[in-house]
Amino acid sequence: MAAPRIKGVLSPVVTPFKRDLSPDVGRFIAHCKWLLSQDCGLAVFGTNSEANSMSADERMALLESIVSAGVPTDRMMPGTGACSINEAAKVSAHATKLGVAGVLMLPPFYYKGVPEEGLFRFFSEVVQRVGDARLRVYLYHIPPVSQVPISLGLIERLLGKYPGIVAGVKDSSGDWSNTKAMLDNFAKGGFDVFAGSEEFLLANMRHGGKGCITATGNINPGPIDNLYRNWRSPDADRMQAAITATRKIVQKQPMIPALKAAIASFGNDPQWKTVRPPLVELNAEQERTLITELKAAGFSMPGLA
Amino acid sequence: MAAPRIKGVLSPVVTPFKRDLSPDVGRFIAHCKWLLSQDCGLAVFGTNSEANSMSADERMALLESIVSAGVPTDRMMPGTGACSINEAAKVSAHATKLGVAGVLMLPPFYYKGVPEEGLFRFFSEVVQRVGDARLRVYLYHIPPVSQVPISLGLIERLLGKYPGIVAGVKDSSGDWSNTKAMLDNFAKGGFDVFAGSEEFLLANMRHGGKGCITATGNINPGPIDNLYRNWRSPDADRMQAAITATRKIVQKQPMIPALKAAIASFGNDPQWKTVRPPLVELNAEQERTLITELKAAGFSMPGLA
Repeated sequence: MAAPRIKGVLSPVVTPFKRDLSPDVGRFIAHCKWLLSQDCGLAVFGTNSEANSMSADERMALLESIVSAGVPTDRMMPGTGACSINEAAKVSAHATKLGVAGVLMLPPFYYKGVPEEGLFRFFSEVVQRVGDARLRVYLYHIPPVSQVPISLGLIERLLGKYPGIVAGVKDSSGDWSNTKAMLDNFAKGGFDVFAGSEEFLLANMRHGGKGCITATGNINPGPIDNLYRNWRSPDADRMQAAITATRKIVQKQPMIPALKAAIASFGNDPQWKTVRPPLVELNAEQERTLITELKAAGFSMPGLA
Repeated sequence: MAAPRIKGVLSPVVTPFKRDLSPDVGRFIAHCKWLLSQDCGLAVFGTNSEANSMSADERMALLESIVSAGVPTDRMMPGTGACSINEAAKVSAHATKLGVAGVLMLPPFYYKGVPEEGLFRFFSEVVQRVGDARLRVYLYHIPPVSQVPISLGLIERLLGKYPGIVAGVKDSSGDWSNTKAMLDNFAKGGFDVFAGSEEFLLANMRHGGKGCITATGNINPGPIDNLYRNWRSPDADRMQAAITATRKIVQKQPMIPALKAAIASFGNDPQWKTVRPPLVELNAEQERTLITELKAAGFSMPGLA
């Protein structure tokens, strides 16, 4: 019998770095555990994790470290996409063997304007090379960053060829009409649609979606999870407005350094501010604005060190 | 005494693949040797080499294989850019130790809209991690694909901090006014500007550039090199028009599969048509058009098997 699919609120876990820019395993495990304590699943190695600023070896080692630390694999959906079939297959096979609930797979993102047939062949080749019936692929549609889309036509072809393996999508297009089209076309066939931002969580749940995978889950997981669990409540629209308001404060700044600055500030741990180039940490003014506005809105990170 | 800098016409060497999509070492060595026989340098692992569709390990192994086969390292400028500092530094150090003339380095290309400061830190970190005085970095400006530019401001900062190490640029913007600005600002200071297409070779030479690094060098190296050697000739404009006309025939089709189809056809070796996903080989109609138009223009690949 297949394991139940992962659902709910997941966070692309931000990756802490040491002064020498190496991944900080201790802080990473601690942050994963804090997120789990808030009922937030772990989409480690997403865009907001600076995953593509790390080598495949670094990501595989980090994944092993959290598994060894007892973080439950059925709450994990690591990002395993890459520009090369080899790397995508290697990292996906590794994660699948460790028992993760699924993998979140970017399309190959170097070449632009590639044909749908080429993307189909890419994902097909990766699925076949992994060759593991436990593999669950969540396609990662994030055209503002990857510039290479996951079209409805591609989903249809992949679902047709790999039913059960191709399990869902994260839609980070920021375009609700696209998320809606994914839901309308595929949700009833067992294709799990996650909104790419909590801004669309309530709408996604109302139309048959399975939750959201969201950057701000790193700092505001409790209230987002609360809406996920109570989306049928008469209070749901107010809850949606509240979490969207928090997101909008964070979004005024560059997202990844802002998330790290918030953790550094609310967790009293300045080392968290470190990002890997090509990203740059917030300047003093940006940081002051972010923290002041979050505090004024009554924001907190309960239970953080 | 520092070795003389590489210059002239280089080709981003297309990478042959076997039926199982693994790199075909034998055909790769043969193509490198044919290019050298036409006085064309080897910018292996460029965009047109499908370098980003290969893992770092595959690229390092291929480089070792051509060095072992006796291909001269002073005619090589391998691409070594990557999204992660680790990979860019590892591959660049490996190539530098093998004695290559220089490395062609993409900016990290996953995150878009990153600050110039972040790109400066990225390249800076890579140069420091390589830690080898023989390193020669050629910056790779190809905004239509990478979507992340190498600005004049970034070049100025990197040249200021790493004179002698930061050696030049390949400008694949397709915008002559940008190439001209690079020449005007930096060429006299020992910064070597290569046009990213033979279309701008004559203009580049007339304004102090050092040559070109061009996709179509894979199939038309002789005539392009002839213009490079004779750019002061009264016949230069006619030579420029002829090589541009050939390029325009190839450019009507998707470039990488078209180059491979031409080698397959003129070299009587159909296996050359194979590309790695997400790319797709030419369809029959595209291939017929390409080969017919090339033949009608009197195109040939002298000395090809």
